[in-house]
Amino acid sequence: MSEAPPDPPPAANWRDRWYVIIFEHDTPAGKRFDVWLLWAILLSVLVVMLESVGAIKARYETLLLAAEWGFTILFTAEYVVRLLVVRRPWRYAVSFFGIVDLLSILPTFLTLLPFVSGSQGLATVRSLRLLRAFRIFKIGKMLTEADALKQAVSMSRAKIAVFLSAVLIAVVIVGSAMYVVEGRLEGSGFTSIPTSMYWAVVTMTTVGYGDIAPVTPLGKFIAGMMMLFGYSLIIVPTGFVSAELVGNKQKAPGTLSLRTCAACLSEGHDKDASHCKYCGEPLPA
Amino acid sequence: MSEAPPDPPPAANWRDRWYVIIFEHDTPAGKRFDVWLLWAILLSVLVVMLESVGAIKARYETLLLAAEWGFTILFTAEYVVRLLVVRRPWRYAVSFFGIVDLLSILPTFLTLLPFVSGSQGLATVRSLRLLRAFRIFKIGKMLTEADALKQAVSMSRAKIAVFLSAVLIAVVIVGSAMYVVEGRLEGSGFTSIPTSMYWAVVTMTTVGYGDIAPVTPLGKFIAGMMMLFGYSLIIVPTGFVSAELVGNKQKAPGTLSLRTCAACLSEGHDKDASHCKYCGEPLPA
Amino acid sequence: MSEAPPDPPPAANWRDRWYVIIFEHDTPAGKRFDVWLLWAILLSVLVVMLESVGAIKARYETLLLAAEWGFTILFTAEYVVRLLVVRRPWRYAVSFFGIVDLLSILPTFLTLLPFVSGSQGLATVRSLRLLRAFRIFKIGKMLTEADALKQAVSMSRAKIAVFLSAVLIAVVIVGSAMYVVEGRLEGSGFTSIPTSMYWAVVTMTTVGYGDIAPVTPLGKFIAGMMMLFGYSLIIVPTGFVSAELVGNKQKAPGTLSLRTCAACLSEGHDKDASHCKYCGEPLPA
Amino acid sequence: MSEAPPDPPPAANWRDRWYVIIFEHDTPAGKRFDVWLLWAILLSVLVVMLESVGAIKARYETLLLAAEWGFTILFTAEYVVRLLVVRRPWRYAVSFFGIVDLLSILPTFLTLLPFVSGSQGLATVRSLRLLRAFRIFKIGKMLTEADALKQAVSMSRAKIAVFLSAVLIAVVIVGSAMYVVEGRLEGSGFTSIPTSMYWAVVTMTTVGYGDIAPVTPLGKFIAGMMMLFGYSLIIVPTGFVSAELVGNKQKAPGTLSLRTCAACLSEGHDKDASHCKYCGEPLPA
Repeated sequence: MSEAPPDPPPAANWRDRWYVIIFEHDTPAGKRFDVWLLWAILLSVLVVMLESVGAIKARYETLLLAAEWGFTILFTAEYVVRLLVVRRPWRYAVSFFGIVDLLSILPTFLTLLPFVSGSQGLATVRSLRLLRAFRIFKIGKMLTEADALKQAVSMSRAKIAVFLSAVLIAVVIVGSAMYVVEGRLEGSGFTSIPTSMYWAVVTMTTVGYGDIAPVTPLGKFIAGMMMLFGYSLIIVPTGFVSAELVGNKQKAPGTLSLRTCAACLSEGHDKDASHCKYCGEPLPA
Repeated sequence: MSEAPPDPPPAANWRDRWYVIIFEHDTPAGKRFDVWLLWAILLSVLVVMLESVGAIKARYETLLLAAEWGFTILFTAEYVVRLLVVRRPWRYAVSFFGIVDLLSILPTFLTLLPFVSGSQGLATVRSLRLLRAFRIFKIGKMLTEADALKQAVSMSRAKIAVFLSAVLIAVVIVGSAMYVVEGRLEGSGFTSIPTSMYWAVVTMTTVGYGDIAPVTPLGKFIAGMMMLFGYSLIIVPTGFVSAELVGNKQKAPGTLSLRTCAACLSEGHDKDASHCKYCGEPLPA
Repeated sequence: MSEAPPDPPPAANWRDRWYVIIFEHDTPAGKRFDVWLLWAILLSVLVVMLESVGAIKARYETLLLAAEWGFTILFTAEYVVRLLVVRRPWRYAVSFFGIVDLLSILPTFLTLLPFVSGSQGLATVRSLRLLRAFRIFKIGKMLTEADALKQAVSMSRAKIAVFLSAVLIAVVIVGSAMYVVEGRLEGSGFTSIPTSMYWAVVTMTTVGYGDIAPVTPLGKFIAGMMMLFGYSLIIVPTGFVSAELVGNKQKAPGTLSLRTCAACLSEGHDKDASHCKYCGEPLPA
Repeated sequence: MSEAPPDPPPAANWRDRWYVIIFEHDTPAGKRFDVWLLWAILLSVLVVMLESVGAIKARYETLLLAAEWGFTILFTAEYVVRLLVVRRPWRYAVSFFGIVDLLSILPTFLTLLPFVSGSQGLATVRSLRLLRAFRIFKIGKMLTEADALKQAVSMSRAKIAVFLSAVLIAVVIVGSAMYVVEGRLEGSGFTSIPTSMYWAVVTMTTVGYGDIAPVTPLGKFIAGMMMLFGYSLIIVPTGFVSAELVGNKQKAPGTLSLRTCAACLSEGHDKDASHCKYCGEPLPA
C-alpha cells in the first residue's frame, strides 16, 4: 500500500497522489478507497464483537485472531501512510480523527504485552472512524444537519451547564440523605455515599434498574419526591433546545427569499412570488 | 363469497361490483363490508391471543381452533377475491396492504407443516390490517393528521439519521468498555460485547430492566455518565421535530387567508397582502 | 346540617340559603363551607390510607373505623342536601362531581354487605373531590390554565388517536413476536400473548420493571429495536402539543393589542405603544 | 483568619476590608478568596464521601477525621466572620446562602452529641455552596441563563400546579385501586395504600424499579393503562415550557433592534419601526 508509484507524472509525486486517494472524497479513486475502508472498519468491529462471544470464540478462534491481526496491520499501514502524505503530520496526529485512528490499532498491539489482558474489546473504538461516512455520502446535507444540531447545543451551552450543575448537586445531596436514612439497615443497597449517588443518577434519569431501592417509608418518600423532580427536570432543557431551534428555523434562509421590491422596497416575499404583495409591481428574478 | 353474480347489469360485470364492495369505502355496500371486516379482524386477533393463554386453551381448545380456521378461510377467500377483481393484481400483491393480507393468513397454514411449530402467534400481524380503519372513518381528518406526522418525521429524516448514528456508535463503544471493565467478574451480566450492547440500549433509552447492572465502582461511574448522556440525548430530536412542526404550523392554511385571486385563481395569499403575489392584480378584500 | 332554618327571610327560603352556602364560592359562608369541606376530604383520604397500613390499623382500629364512618355520614348528609337544594337534582347527579360525590361514599357502605370485602380502599376516589379546590382558590387564573391545557390536548386529539393506534398495534405485534421467540423456554416470563403485550407496554413506555426480560439473543435484539422505537416515539406527540401551544400563544390576546392607527390604519402595535410605529401619529387609547 | 488587621488605612477599617474580600468578587483579593473557598468546599465534600466508603474509612480514618474537622473549623470561622463584617447580620443569616452556610457545619458538630449518629453524611449539603461559583465565573452570562430558566418555570407555575395536582390525584386513586386488586395476594408488594402510591409514582415517572410489580391479569392491565397515561403526561408540561420559552425568545433582545430613540431615549423598538412608538419622533436608521 505504501510502495512508491512506478511512474510519477510531472505535476504529482506519489505523496500527492496518495493524499488525493486517502484524504479526498470526490475523485473516483478517493471514493473507492473510502468505501473499501468503511467496509473494512465495519467488518473489523464485527470481528471484535464475535471474538467476545464465548461459544463463537471457542470454535473460530484462529480465524478471528487472523482477521483481527489482518485488519490491525491494514489500519496501521493506513495510519503510517496518512502521516507520511499529509503536509502537517503533527496537526493530523492530534486532530480528532488522528487520535481515533491511533486508538483503533493500539488495543490489538497491547494484547502482545505480558501484563495486559482483555484490552481487545476496546478496539471497537474504531467504530468512531465510521463517522467519516458523513463526509463521504451526501456530504452537504448531512453536515448541514449535524452543524444545525451542534449549533443549537452550543447556543444552549450555558443553560445546559446551569442545568447539569443543578442535577449534580441534587445527586450529591439526595444521595447523601438516602445514605443517612437507609445506609444502616441490614442488607441495604445504600452502602456508601458514592453508591447512593449512583442510585440517585439511576433514579433521576428514570432508568431505574432496581438493583438498589429504598425499603424504609421515609426512604421511599424521599425517592418518590426525587422521581417527580427528575421527571419534571427533563422538561426544562427540552424547552430550551426547542426554543433555540424554533428561533434558528425562523431566521434560516430557505423559508423567505431576500429579494426587495424595486418599487416600494418591501421585503419578506415568498420564494414563489413573482409580484410584490404590497404594491403589485413585478419582483426582480 | 367469490361466486359469480346471478344477473350482471350492462355496465358492471361481477368483478366491477365486487371491486366497489371491497376496495371502495363510500357506497353503502362498501361501508358495510368494511365494518364487518374490521370486526372479523379484531375477533380473530382476540382468538389468537386467547389461544396463547394456557388455562383458556386447555378448556376451549376445539372452539378456538375452529374459530381460528374459520377466520383464516374467510381471509383467504377475501385475499383471493381481491387478487381476482383488482385491475393490476401484482401491484396489489406487492403493496403494503397486499403483503399484510398475505402475512395474515400464512402463520395458520404454516402450523400444518410437520417441522414448524408455534408460528400461530405471528398471526397477530393481521392487526396491521386495522390500519385500514383510518381510510374508512373520518377519512379526511385522520389522513391529514397522519400525513402531517409523516411529513414532519420525513423532513427531520437527515437529522434523525445523524442522531441514530451517534446513538449506535455510543452503544458500541460504551458496550465494549463495560465488557472490558465488568466482563471478567464472576457472575457478571456483561458476558460478551453484544450482550453489553443490549445493556447499553436498555440503559440509554432509560428502560433499565436491571437484569444486567454494573457492580464495580468504575462500571457504575461509566454507567452513570452514560445515563446522563442518554437522558440529555432525547432533548435533541424532540427539539428538532418540535421546530419542524412549529414551522409547518406557521405555514399551514390556518395562518393564511383563503382568498382566491379573481384574475389568476391562485390561492395561499398572506393575510396582509393587498395584491396577488403571482399576477399583480389587486386581491378581493 | 339539613335541619330547616328557624326564621326564613322573605326573599330566601332554606333551600336558597343552603344553595348559596354549598354551591357558591364567593360569599363568606360559602367560602367557609368550602374550606372546611376540603379539610374534611383531605383528612378522610388520610384515614383510608392509614387504615391500609397493617401496623397502624392493629393499634388504632376503633379510632380509624369511627373516623371513617363519621366522614362517610357527613359526606352522605352533604350529598343528600346537595340533591335537595339544587334546582335540577338529576342533572347534578349525573354530572362529573355528582358521580364522584356518590362514589366517595359507596365503598364504605359496601363493606356492610357480607359478600364484599376490601372495597374500603376505593374510598380514596374521594380525592377527586379535591379538584373543587381549583374553583375556590384563584378561580380565574387556575381555570384559564386548565382550559388552555384541555384545549391544546383536544386540538391534538386526532393526532394523538393516530399515535395511540400505532402504539397499540406495535404492542400487539411485538408482544406476539416475543411470545413466539421466547415463550417456549423453560422459566420464561413470556407465558402468553397478553403477558407479552404487558411486557411490550412496560418496555415501550421505558418503565422497564425487569420482572419479564428477554434471554435469547434474538429476543434481546427485538427488544433493543423496540426500545429505540419507543424512545423515538415520544418525540412525535411532544412536538405536536408543543407546536399547538406555540401556535395558541402567538394568537393569544395579551401579546399584541388590537388597536388600529387612525392615520395609516396599520395594526400589530405593542400594548405599551402610544404612537404608531409606522407613521408616528398618536394611537387611540 | 479573623485577627484584626495590623495597620488600618484611614477610610477602611478591618470590617470593610474583610467585607470586600469575602462578599465581593471583582477585586484580586476577593477573587483569590473565592477560588480557594470553592476548592475547600469541593475537597470537604470529597472527604465526607470517602468517609462513607467502608474500605477507605478503615484505612485512613484518622486522616479523614482530621481533614473533616479542619474543614469544619475553617468554615465555622468563615461563617462567624461573615456575620461580623456584614452590615445586617440577621438578613444574611436567614438568606438562602446564610442558611446553607450554617447547615454546612452543623452535621459535624452534631456527631459530638452522644445520642446522634450517622449525621455526618448530611454534611454534603455544603455542596450547595458551590452554587456561589455562578456568581464568580462568567457572572453575567450564567445568571442571565439561570434567570431565563427561573422565569420560564415561574411563568408556567400555574400550569405546573394544575399538572402536579392531576398527577397526585392519579397517584392516590391508582395506588388505592392496585391495593384493592393486588393487596390480598400472598407475597404481593402492594402491602398498603402508601406503598401502592410509591409504586404508582415509580411507574408514572417511568423509573420502574421492579421491586413491586403487579402479578394478576387485572393488575397488569391497570398498570399498563397507567404507564401509557404517564408516558403521555410528560408531553403536556414539556409543551407548556417550550411554548413559554419560544414566546420569550421572540420578545427577547435578539429579535429587537438596539436602537435608542434620540428624542425620548426609549429602547426596544421593533426592527421594522421607522418612528419611536413612545413619542412619535422618527427613529435613527
